Amino acid sequence: MQSPIETDAVIIGAGPVGLFQVFELGLLEINAHVIDALPEIGGQCIELYPDKPIYDIPAIPVCTGRELTHNLLKQVTPFKPQFHLNQEVTTLEKQADGRFLIGTSLHQQFLSKTIFVAAGVGAFQPRTLNLEGIENFVDKQVFYKVKDPAQFTGKRMVICGGGDSALDWALHFADKVSNLTLIHRRDDFKAAPQSVTQMRALCASHQMKLEIGQITGFSSSNGQLTQIAVSNIDGDVHTIDVDVLLLFYGLSPKLGPIADWGLDIDRKQITVDTERFQTSTPGIYAVGDINVYPGKKKLILSGFHEAALAAFAAAAYLSPEKPIQLQYTTTSTKLHQVLGVGSPTFE
Amino acid sequence: MQSPIETDAVIIGAGPVGLFQVFELGLLEINAHVIDALPEIGGQCIELYPDKPIYDIPAIPVCTGRELTHNLLKQVTPFKPQFHLNQEVTTLEKQADGRFLIGTSLHQQFLSKTIFVAAGVGAFQPRTLNLEGIENFVDKQVFYKVKDPAQFTGKRMVICGGGDSALDWALHFADKVSNLTLIHRRDDFKAAPQSVTQMRALCASHQMKLEIGQITGFSSSNGQLTQIAVSNIDGDVHTIDVDVLLLFYGLSPKLGPIADWGLDIDRKQITVDTERFQTSTPGIYAVGDINVYPGKKKLILSGFHEAALAAFAAAAYLSPEKPIQLQYTTTSTKLHQVLGVGSPTFE
Repeated sequence: MQSPIETDAVIIGAGPVGLFQVFELGLLEINAHVIDALPEIGGQCIELYPDKPIYDIPAIPVCTGRELTHNLLKQVTPFKPQFHLNQEVTTLEKQADGRFLIGTSLHQQFLSKTIFVAAGVGAFQPRTLNLEGIENFVDKQVFYKVKDPAQFTGKRMVICGGGDSALDWALHFADKVSNLTLIHRRDDFKAAPQSVTQMRALCASHQMKLEIGQITGFSSSNGQLTQIAVSNIDGDVHTIDVDVLLLFYGLSPKLGPIADWGLDIDRKQITVDTERFQTSTPGIYAVGDINVYPGKKKLILSGFHEAALAAFAAAAYLSPEKPIQLQYTTTSTKLHQVLGVGSPTFE
Repeated sequence: MQSPIETDAVIIGAGPVGLFQVFELGLLEINAHVIDALPEIGGQCIELYPDKPIYDIPAIPVCTGRELTHNLLKQVTPFKPQFHLNQEVTTLEKQADGRFLIGTSLHQQFLSKTIFVAAGVGAFQPRTLNLEGIENFVDKQVFYKVKDPAQFTGKRMVICGGGDSALDWALHFADKVSNLTLIHRRDDFKAAPQSVTQMRALCASHQMKLEIGQITGFSSSNGQLTQIAVSNIDGDVHTIDVDVLLLFYGLSPKLGPIADWGLDIDRKQITVDTERFQTSTPGIYAVGDINVYPGKKKLILSGFHEAALAAFAAAAYLSPEKPIQLQYTTTSTKLHQVLGVGSPTFE
């Protein structure tokens, strides 16, 4: 266990609202650490619609999720936020001194005076295969992510899914395993077209096999998974011998451990006030899609507003004796210093 | 008096928040008419800081007031808003049928079911010369704007101010009046540098005169303004004979007639709830710098959020029987039709 990182603010979630939270805190000279379950910065924008156009970000007639993320990252550059990716926040405990001890799935710890939950619809987790008993084989013969590819050399492998993860690993393993079958529920792939073309070529040269269908059962013997049953669209069922099953059904968001932190929750959303966007625990704020209040709409632009007001509230919480003035980035010399931009010389 | 324009929504104020109000109403298929006291679209952004950088619009690391306005205008294009500029809203009366009758200073009338007050810090009005009795000569010999330049030919003219209006009119009248004096409180001008250079050249060739000082008094005879008294920085006073006095002291915002509409007001701001951003009068919403609620910060991005929620509230007010679903511009075919964009074909 590493020693905890001590900080004024931890932001849970590196989506657009979490990024803008960094910006609003930065303007008030509060530095933040950002934690996200995904390996990349951008949240839903990157995970769900990196290349799809968004039309309702104010003053940006159209941008993709990727462009939005890129622009927000550029905007927070002056504040040098530290990102801790690929790890879910698992524990949160209030300490005797009023700070919060936060622990992640990678065993990183933080001691923070304030927390901003910008976790969107929750941490993204792999969708699992819904077959009773299959969970007994997870991380033995059934995998939702690949950590050690070398262990699968020479095995009989089945990969399920139609996205980039499924196709990328199929292309990777085709010449390394003894037998490779790719199963997808329909003959239409979300993966990069080039990967699909390569996969079809490997099928044509019998280096792998593609089956259109779904896994509907399995057999085991002596505690080992031995076969899976695949149903095709017509309902015909056949079996495939298998040593290793890799499942890439995409990611689905889960509120996860956040539900256990003692915050008031209403139908999987954290209740906040509309003055400070504070949760039922002083010092913990919730912004973006994860919060709820009368009138709430799950719009990115609402998350931006919430992040701004939460930042002012946190500044008052951190330094109750210090009056906070609203200053404008257009005119404030102080904010120009904070942003690292030259003050305009024209009046 | 023209016959009233009948509409579902009137937006008072064509600043950034008024423009985004058009957009949010448009997504819900509510068309809007926009009224502004200024001759140009853009509000404070254009009037006060067209060329200054703004750093805190989310996902726009830096833009000027002019660029912000330009981008918002582009964003509302699909909704074809109708602008009614250069006129202040003067009267507002609720009708027996529940609609509001709105009258402007240009005698345009509107009958609207809803109103969105996005008037910022109020309607911009010319700053006036603070000398008792001078108001008796306004629009006779003292002018805050020029409507009919030809009437001044051959007169003894004094122009006051240091911005573009003062300089532009000085350059215009230099060879048309019998005598021209430009008065500014200091030898430093906000006007375009080129205009300042031209003005100094005209002074050097004795076609006009520049005086650094302030008007501190006037004389009149037989109901005619005859002389003004000018004090320079050292306190010395001298007089100038004058037929016409043009005053360009800039614009200053005034809440104006809005104060008389019976809306609950707290220190010159309209009180609203944070669920619908509705005023004390149902059907009238207030968004942006003109409203106040617990936690309110006068940030453009807060106005954007307020406009979004006010639009949803107005849609429910206009069609109480019709359920309103939050749809996303990224995925909704309906919204793509409304925006006039092709639905993306990739999944």
